[in-house]
Amino acid sequence: MARNGIKVGIVGGTGYTGVELLRLLAQHPHCELRAITSRKEAGLAVAEMFPNLRGRVSLKFSDPAAADLAACNLVFFATPNGVAMEQARALVDAGVRIIDIAADFRIRDVALWEKWYGVKHACPELVAEAVYGLPEMHREKIREARLVANPGCYPTAVQLGFLPLLEAGIVDVDHLIADAKSGVSGAGRKAEVHTLLAEASDNFKAYGVPGHRHQPEITQGLDRIAGRPVRLVFVPHLTPMIRGIHATLYARLTAEADLQVLYEKRYGAEAFVDVLPAGSHPDTRSVRGANYCRIAVHRPHGGDIVVVLSVIDNLVKGASGQAVQNMNIMFGFPETTALEQLALLP
Amino acid sequence: MARNGIKVGIVGGTGYTGVELLRLLAQHPHCELRAITSRKEAGLAVAEMFPNLRGRVSLKFSDPAAADLAACNLVFFATPNGVAMEQARALVDAGVRIIDIAADFRIRDVALWEKWYGVKHACPELVAEAVYGLPEMHREKIREARLVANPGCYPTAVQLGFLPLLEAGIVDVDHLIADAKSGVSGAGRKAEVHTLLAEASDNFKAYGVPGHRHQPEITQGLDRIAGRPVRLVFVPHLTPMIRGIHATLYARLTAEADLQVLYEKRYGAEAFVDVLPAGSHPDTRSVRGANYCRIAVHRPHGGDIVVVLSVIDNLVKGASGQAVQNMNIMFGFPETTALEQLALLP
Amino acid sequence: MARNGIKVGIVGGTGYTGVELLRLLAQHPHCELRAITSRKEAGLAVAEMFPNLRGRVSLKFSDPAAADLAACNLVFFATPNGVAMEQARALVDAGVRIIDIAADFRIRDVALWEKWYGVKHACPELVAEAVYGLPEMHREKIREARLVANPGCYPTAVQLGFLPLLEAGIVDVDHLIADAKSGVSGAGRKAEVHTLLAEASDNFKAYGVPGHRHQPEITQGLDRIAGRPVRLVFVPHLTPMIRGIHATLYARLTAEADLQVLYEKRYGAEAFVDVLPAGSHPDTRSVRGANYCRIAVHRPHGGDIVVVLSVIDNLVKGASGQAVQNMNIMFGFPETTALEQLALLP
Amino acid sequence: MARNGIKVGIVGGTGYTGVELLRLLAQHPHCELRAITSRKEAGLAVAEMFPNLRGRVSLKFSDPAAADLAACNLVFFATPNGVAMEQARALVDAGVRIIDIAADFRIRDVALWEKWYGVKHACPELVAEAVYGLPEMHREKIREARLVANPGCYPTAVQLGFLPLLEAGIVDVDHLIADAKSGVSGAGRKAEVHTLLAEASDNFKAYGVPGHRHQPEITQGLDRIAGRPVRLVFVPHLTPMIRGIHATLYARLTAEADLQVLYEKRYGAEAFVDVLPAGSHPDTRSVRGANYCRIAVHRPHGGDIVVVLSVIDNLVKGASGQAVQNMNIMFGFPETTALEQLALLP
Repeated sequence: MARNGIKVGIVGGTGYTGVELLRLLAQHPHCELRAITSRKEAGLAVAEMFPNLRGRVSLKFSDPAAADLAACNLVFFATPNGVAMEQARALVDAGVRIIDIAADFRIRDVALWEKWYGVKHACPELVAEAVYGLPEMHREKIREARLVANPGCYPTAVQLGFLPLLEAGIVDVDHLIADAKSGVSGAGRKAEVHTLLAEASDNFKAYGVPGHRHQPEITQGLDRIAGRPVRLVFVPHLTPMIRGIHATLYARLTAEADLQVLYEKRYGAEAFVDVLPAGSHPDTRSVRGANYCRIAVHRPHGGDIVVVLSVIDNLVKGASGQAVQNMNIMFGFPETTALEQLALLP
Repeated sequence: MARNGIKVGIVGGTGYTGVELLRLLAQHPHCELRAITSRKEAGLAVAEMFPNLRGRVSLKFSDPAAADLAACNLVFFATPNGVAMEQARALVDAGVRIIDIAADFRIRDVALWEKWYGVKHACPELVAEAVYGLPEMHREKIREARLVANPGCYPTAVQLGFLPLLEAGIVDVDHLIADAKSGVSGAGRKAEVHTLLAEASDNFKAYGVPGHRHQPEITQGLDRIAGRPVRLVFVPHLTPMIRGIHATLYARLTAEADLQVLYEKRYGAEAFVDVLPAGSHPDTRSVRGANYCRIAVHRPHGGDIVVVLSVIDNLVKGASGQAVQNMNIMFGFPETTALEQLALLP
Repeated sequence: MARNGIKVGIVGGTGYTGVELLRLLAQHPHCELRAITSRKEAGLAVAEMFPNLRGRVSLKFSDPAAADLAACNLVFFATPNGVAMEQARALVDAGVRIIDIAADFRIRDVALWEKWYGVKHACPELVAEAVYGLPEMHREKIREARLVANPGCYPTAVQLGFLPLLEAGIVDVDHLIADAKSGVSGAGRKAEVHTLLAEASDNFKAYGVPGHRHQPEITQGLDRIAGRPVRLVFVPHLTPMIRGIHATLYARLTAEADLQVLYEKRYGAEAFVDVLPAGSHPDTRSVRGANYCRIAVHRPHGGDIVVVLSVIDNLVKGASGQAVQNMNIMFGFPETTALEQLALLP
Repeated sequence: MARNGIKVGIVGGTGYTGVELLRLLAQHPHCELRAITSRKEAGLAVAEMFPNLRGRVSLKFSDPAAADLAACNLVFFATPNGVAMEQARALVDAGVRIIDIAADFRIRDVALWEKWYGVKHACPELVAEAVYGLPEMHREKIREARLVANPGCYPTAVQLGFLPLLEAGIVDVDHLIADAKSGVSGAGRKAEVHTLLAEASDNFKAYGVPGHRHQPEITQGLDRIAGRPVRLVFVPHLTPMIRGIHATLYARLTAEADLQVLYEKRYGAEAFVDVLPAGSHPDTRSVRGANYCRIAVHRPHGGDIVVVLSVIDNLVKGASGQAVQNMNIMFGFPETTALEQLALLP
C-alpha cells in the first residue's frame, strides 16, 4: 500500500465484506490502511482469522475505542446493520467521508426503514444527505458525497438489470418480477443452522417470499428510474454455492424497441457492466471475485415478455468491490483502480 | 423380488434413470426383473457399474438382441430419446405394456415433436394411443394404457404447480411464467464439458431461454388443463446440486380465490403431492430420493400475482419414481408400493 | 409402524442422528415410536423441523419431564455427549434397554474419557457394563446387553478397516496410520462458523492433528483386537460433502498373507461389510444413506505397506443405522430389518 | 500488457491451465501475448470460450500452422501430454525458450516415462537438457534454461512438503507415505463421466492406488533431494471441489530435530512457500487462485511419526502460476510479478 494515498479505516471487518474489502484494498496503490476495528477480536492479527491475507496484511484488529478513525480520510462500515448510524454523525463532523456497506442509509423513507429493520434510526438527518452508491445511476453525486450508502447485493443486480427498460419507459411497471438466486455468502459469516454446508449444500429453496428487506430498497431505486411508483414481486432463493447472484427479471413490453441496442447503448461507457451478445446466458462464475455485472437480454419466442439475466459476485459488485469503486470516484482515482482482477474460472 | 409378480424388462439402464429404476424396483415386492439391456455394456454386471446395487441386484446387462423382452409383462425404456419409438410397435403387438421414460410419445403433435427432437418419428400411430403418465391428471387412462409416456422432469414440477390455478380458471393464461432450476443429474450421465464438476459447481446460470424441448410438452399439458391455448415463458437454470428441481411459477390472478384451500382440496387425495402450510418454502432436499412433489402457494403483499413453489426430485417424481407409480397403477398394485422411502435429509 | 412390536423412545432428536433414526425407524415393521424428547422444541411437530418426514411421522417433540420413557422397551440417546450418563441409571433400573449414540459409554477408562470430554462422568459404574456396539466384533454381547455404546463414525470405519490385519497379527502395530476424511454432517447440526457452506465448501483441510476425541476410542478397540497396545496416528480431515467417511489406512506388513482372501473370509458372513474385488476403490456415495461399510485392500507396488480403503455413511453405519442394527440384534429381529434401503446414487 | 516486454505464445489453451495462464498473463506488465493456438477452435475469440476474460483478452485462437511462434521469446505448452515433445526441438533451435506445463520433459529416465505415458518419446535428447521447474529447488538452473519442465500438481505439493525432512536426512526414506487429495479441475477440462458434477459431487474416493503417473515424478524428485533412492506410497483421492490439493505426508523420524525451525529456516526466503505457525492446519481455500504453498508440520503425541500438511492451488502453484514464476526467473523479472493476487476467501 502506498505512502502518499489516502488514509482508510474499516469498522467491523470480521465478516465476508470485511475480508473482501481487505483483499481488494491490499492491492490498491493509493490507500493506506490505518485501522480495522473489532471489539471482539481486538489484538488478533487479521491474517490469523483470514489466512489468505498472510504476508500481505500485517494489521491487527483494534478496539473501536482505541482506533483513531477521525484521522482517516475515509471510513468503511463493514458492520451489521445498525452500527454505522450510531457513529456516522461524529465522523462526518470530523471531516471523514463514509461508505456504509450495510443498510443504514439506503432507504430514504425512515419510517419504512424502521419497519423493515426493526429498530429506531439513530441518525435520520444523515439519511437525507446520503448518496445511494450505484455509480451507474449516481456517479456525479457520489463524487462529492460525504456519506455513501453502498447498495445491497440483490438491489445491485436487479436495478442494473431493469434500468434500461425503465429509463426507456417501455414496460408495464405494475407487474415487474425479479426471481433472484444467491450464493450462501450473502447470508454473511454468522453461525446459523440453515446456512451450514450440511443444510444448504445439494439443496435449493426460495425464502422470504412474503417479504424481504431488499424489496423496499429495490423498489425505491426502480421508482426513481421509472419516475413513478412501480410494483415488484421479488422472490429470492438460496443456491448451494459460495458467491454469486443471478437475477432473472421479467417484464411485459408495452412498446417496441431493439432491446440489445438499448442495453449496449446504456452501458457502453460503463467499465463494470458488460452486456453480452444476443442469445447469451451469463454464468455467475464469469464474475467470481470480479467487480463486473454481466447482463443478457432475451425476448423468448418474440412474445411480449422480456427476460433479463443479470449476474454479479455478491461480495464484489454486490458489496466490497462496489464500495472500492465508490471510493475511487469519491477521491478522483481511476474508477477501475484495484478492481482489475479477472474472475476466477474455473 | 417376488416370484409371483409381473415380469419386467428395462431397455437401456446405464444412465441415471436406469440406476434409479433399479434402486426402486429392487425393493418392489411384485416385480421380477428379467432383463436390462445395453448394447455397449452387455455382459457387465449392473452392480459393477453402480456399486450401490452390490449384493442386491445380480443381473448383468444383456445384449438387446438376446433379451427376450416379448416375454415380459412390462418394459421400461430408460433410453435416450428416439430409441423407444423404434421398438414399441413390436412389443405392443406382442402384448407387452410399455412405459417410456424418454420423450418419444409425450407430444401428440408429431410435427412439433419432430421439430424439437430433430428426427422423423418412427411410430406416429402409437403417439395417438399413448397415455401421458401424470397420474394426478390421467390416472384412469393410465390404468388401461398399453403405452405410457412418462412425463419430463420440468413438465412434472411445472404442471403440478399450475394445475389447480388453471382448473379453477382464475389466472391470465397469456402470461404464465415458469422460472425453473434443476440439479445437474437432469442432464443425464453423458460426458459433456458443461456439466463437469469443475464447470458447474459453485456456479449458476440460465440456459435455453430462446427455447427448450420441455416447453412444448409443458404447454400441451397446460392447454389441456386450461381448455384453451396458454402462453408460457419458461426459463430453466442449472443449479450446482445433483438432484432436485425447484419451479417458481408466476401468474396474474383474474379472479379472487382462497389459494391455500384450492391447492389443499385439489391434492388432498393424492399420495405424492404435498401442499405445505401457508407461508412455507419447500426445499428440494425434502424430496431427495423420494417420489413427492411438495408445493407452496404465495400471494406476495396481497397483490395480483400468485407465486407457486413446486419441488421434486428430477430422478424420482420427475422420472423413475413416477414410472414406478405408473406401473403400480397399470397393474393394480397399491400406488405407493416401493415408493415409500423417505427423503434423505441431510 | 407395527402395533405388536417394541416400544421405542428417543431422547434428543433435533440433530442429524435423530432425524436419521426417525427416517429408518419410520420404516421398521416391529417398532412403535412412543416419544421423542426435546426440551427446547417441546410441542413442535417433528415433521415441521424435518419436512422429509411429513405425512409419515406424526409425533411431536415432547418435554423430557412429560415423556414416559420408563414405559419403553428401548430408549435411544441421540443427544450431545454428557446427557445419556445422567439418565441411563434410572432407565436401566426400570428395565429399559438403552442405545447411546453419543460417546458417554464408549471408553472403558473413565479417567481417559473425562480427560477428553472435559467433564466428570456421572455414571462410571455403567461404563463397565456397557457393550461396545460394533456388531462385527461383539454381536453376542450386544444380544444380551442392557446398555449399548454405539460406536463413533470414524471409529467404525477405522476399526472395520484394520480388524482383519490385527486379528491376523501380520502388521507392525506401533506405526498404524489412519488418514480419515469426513463429510460435514459429522460435525452435527450445530450453528458454527467453520461448518457454514461458505466456509467449508470448495475447501479441504485437516483438523485435530494434535489430538481428536475419537483417537482413544479407536485405539481402545484396536488394542482389544490386537491383544496388545497399538500406536496409531489419526489425522481427520473435513471434506466438502454432506455425508460420508473415507478412511485410508496404512500399516507395515510383518508377515506374508493373501490380503484379499483374508478380508473376504473375515467378512463373508457379515450383512453390512462388503469387501470389494481386488484393485477397487470404494466411493462414499456407494453407501450414501445405506448401512454398509465397503472396503478395498491394496498393496501398492508389492511393497511392505498395506493400504486399506474403508467407506461408510457417517450417519448410517457410523451412527443411526448401526444403532438400528444393534436394536435388531438386541430384540431378535432379523439384523437387516429396516436397513435394506439401497444407497442413493447419484 | 506492456509494449516493451517479452513476446509470449501459448500452444493449446482451451484447457484449465490455459485459461489460468491467460488470467495471470493478462495482468503481467512485461508480457505481450502474441498468439494462442488451438487447431480445433481456430478463429474463436478466447473470451467467448472463457467469459471471465471478456474485455481484457481480445486474442483469438489461431491455427498452429499459422501462428508465428518462432518469433516469440517464450512459448508455453498448455497442451495434453505428448504435444510439446513434437514441437520443442524446432522452437529451441529457433532460439525460443519453452515452458512445458504438461509432463513431456519431467522424467529423466526416458524408458520410465514411456512406460507410464504409453508412447515413444519424440525428443529424448531434450529431456536431458530440460530443467525441472521447481524454483525452490532449481532456481539457478531455471534462470538459464532453454526448456523448463513445469512440475505436476501433486509433485509440487508433495516435494515441497517432504523437502526439508529429506535435506536434513532425519526420516526413514524407505517408508514415505503421501496421502493426497485433489479438486476435480486436476483432471482437466475433458468430457468424462467420472468427473461430472453428478458423479463427483458429494462424493469422495481414492483412485490410482496401484499406480499413478505422478509417482515416478515425485520419487525422482525425492531421490535427488535425499541423495539416495526413496520408497514412497502415494495415494491420490478425488475431492468434491474445483481447485486445491491437500497433501498429508507421513514419515518416520530417525533423528531428533526442531521441525518447526527446520521448515521456517528452509523456506524463510521463499516468496511462495508459507510455513504456518506450529499447531496450524492449512486449508486449501487459503491459496485458492494464489501461487502459494502453505505448509504445517506436526508430530502427534510426540511420537516418531511426523505429519506434514501441504496445500496448493493445483492450477496456480501446481501449474500455471508456477509457470509464470518460472518465466519471471528466466527473464529476470521480479519473481512475484503478476502473482501478487490474494486468494479468494470465502
